[in-house]
Amino acid sequence: MATRELSPSMFIGLDGDDIISFGSGQPDLPPPKEVYEILPEYRDFKYGLIQGQTNLREALSKQYPNSNADNFVITNGASEALDLTLRTIARMGNKNKNKVLVPRPYYYSYPNCVRFADMEPVFTDLVKGRIDFDDFEKKVKDCKAVIINSPSNPTGRVESVETLKKIEKLTCDLGVYVLSDEVYKDLIYVRENYLIEGPHVVTINSFSKTYAMCGFRVGYLWSLDQELVNKIIAIKTHTSMNTNILGQEMAYAATKVSRDFIDNQLKIWRERRDLIYNGLLNLGLDLWEPEGAFYVLPKVKNPRDFVLDMFDKYKVITYF
Amino acid sequence: MATRELSPSMFIGLDGDDIISFGSGQPDLPPPKEVYEILPEYRDFKYGLIQGQTNLREALSKQYPNSNADNFVITNGASEALDLTLRTIARMGNKNKNKVLVPRPYYYSYPNCVRFADMEPVFTDLVKGRIDFDDFEKKVKDCKAVIINSPSNPTGRVESVETLKKIEKLTCDLGVYVLSDEVYKDLIYVRENYLIEGPHVVTINSFSKTYAMCGFRVGYLWSLDQELVNKIIAIKTHTSMNTNILGQEMAYAATKVSRDFIDNQLKIWRERRDLIYNGLLNLGLDLWEPEGAFYVLPKVKNPRDFVLDMFDKYKVITYF
Repeated sequence: MATRELSPSMFIGLDGDDIISFGSGQPDLPPPKEVYEILPEYRDFKYGLIQGQTNLREALSKQYPNSNADNFVITNGASEALDLTLRTIARMGNKNKNKVLVPRPYYYSYPNCVRFADMEPVFTDLVKGRIDFDDFEKKVKDCKAVIINSPSNPTGRVESVETLKKIEKLTCDLGVYVLSDEVYKDLIYVRENYLIEGPHVVTINSFSKTYAMCGFRVGYLWSLDQELVNKIIAIKTHTSMNTNILGQEMAYAATKVSRDFIDNQLKIWRERRDLIYNGLLNLGLDLWEPEGAFYVLPKVKNPRDFVLDMFDKYKVITYF
Repeated sequence: MATRELSPSMFIGLDGDDIISFGSGQPDLPPPKEVYEILPEYRDFKYGLIQGQTNLREALSKQYPNSNADNFVITNGASEALDLTLRTIARMGNKNKNKVLVPRPYYYSYPNCVRFADMEPVFTDLVKGRIDFDDFEKKVKDCKAVIINSPSNPTGRVESVETLKKIEKLTCDLGVYVLSDEVYKDLIYVRENYLIEGPHVVTINSFSKTYAMCGFRVGYLWSLDQELVNKIIAIKTHTSMNTNILGQEMAYAATKVSRDFIDNQLKIWRERRDLIYNGLLNLGLDLWEPEGAFYVLPKVKNPRDFVLDMFDKYKVITYF
């Protein structure tokens, strides 16, 4: 019997009244209404700046310390921010040093994006869903970059601040690039987000999760490494040009929405987290309590069969 | 004195009442009004299919022979279509065969995108703005792919149908991929567009020029090489996910606009072509009569100084 091909992408965009999706990280709650209020009068159509609209970058710069609009690039979602950053780093410095350290389990695009940039992913296995700093320290020395994702997709875990500070110092001392994917930074149940900083840190974020704007694909990267930012823009000039100007204007509208929107969302996500976590526990499944994002990762004996069965028999989408 | 860095990207998105831009290929005439009419009621927000919205791909499939929606991928402009196709081809077949043939003068992103995909651009010099088939034939044998751009940016020339047919046959016989960038296919003054076809042809197009939707970044690729199309989608899953869903819906609205819109635009572009062509001739400049697109390429002794002078002294943007 031929092995049935299985990848998360086969489920992306699948929708319908009869399908229950616990698949892609897709909020079902809508974006703030302000995002749509700009639409009726919108009439722009020309190319925008490759780096992104000035109003949006200026608004974002107020959210990050020691920042100005030049430190940002607006991208086609966090995905393009990750892809462009890896492609750029691959072309900088020593081209034979091409390893990127990825904590495992990981968001499924990380190793693929690393490989598409002609770099080599190497892995550090999480212990109880958190980075094992000793293993991290050993492996990062050979690496050109490392990807950090806290809160994490798919574990739902939030890294300890102590570990993040040690990583900041170590990567700074070694001159290793840090790609910090913080797209779930506003969905944390246990503490405030800790913004990783450093001379070669690239923070990746998006409007997809905080503002439920997944389909509009507005992400961004922020870095105080201006040389790196400029090189990223130089690549984007040829590979996609500006990010959709209307998506950016909608994102700009989102930046002006009161913090209450995020707090209300978080309250709902927390109730759901409690429901599903306790429900799965009651079923006898072994899993971590999610501390952020909206994922649970129960241990399942044969995850491949589980995912296919859940879809074929119950029209419930899950990933493994 | 330090050399002042000069690249077209420094001008992209620059706008203002005091600047006259003959820079990026940016129609000043607005898109059809139907494109904006969907905005007031629009409320979607979820991830779309990576490959693109089904309604848009189905509408496009009616414009291409022997096609169905599966043959299309909707991309972040023609730029991403070019980038994704090159990245995908670079990973297929013999990885040591990595040359891509590019007619010169070329759209400035071509050699860059080829290099970003870790392939090597090789060039065939146009003779009087057209492909020299003998030189093409000699060089294409070592190549994995070739980029054709008719009507051409920046020459404004349209390739002869006879040459295009010879290229179709030769590349088919050799198994060489053809990336046919036809974004100016609706802006031809001398004949109908000739659609290049073949088993490994990828046609690249966009809504940017025909419908003046540059800023919304909706492009697409079409190929009957379904294996290649599927591999392109597999890469896009990780590098940018779906193209902005609202941009796609606006593009879908554009596909329903009457052909009159295009004919009226073409009439205006033709009048402008005549004005600028004759004006530059009267100034004593040496140039080809543009047969398509909206570019003129006069011969100038010192193009670098010319472009900088035009901007610094007269706030007129030109490229070289």
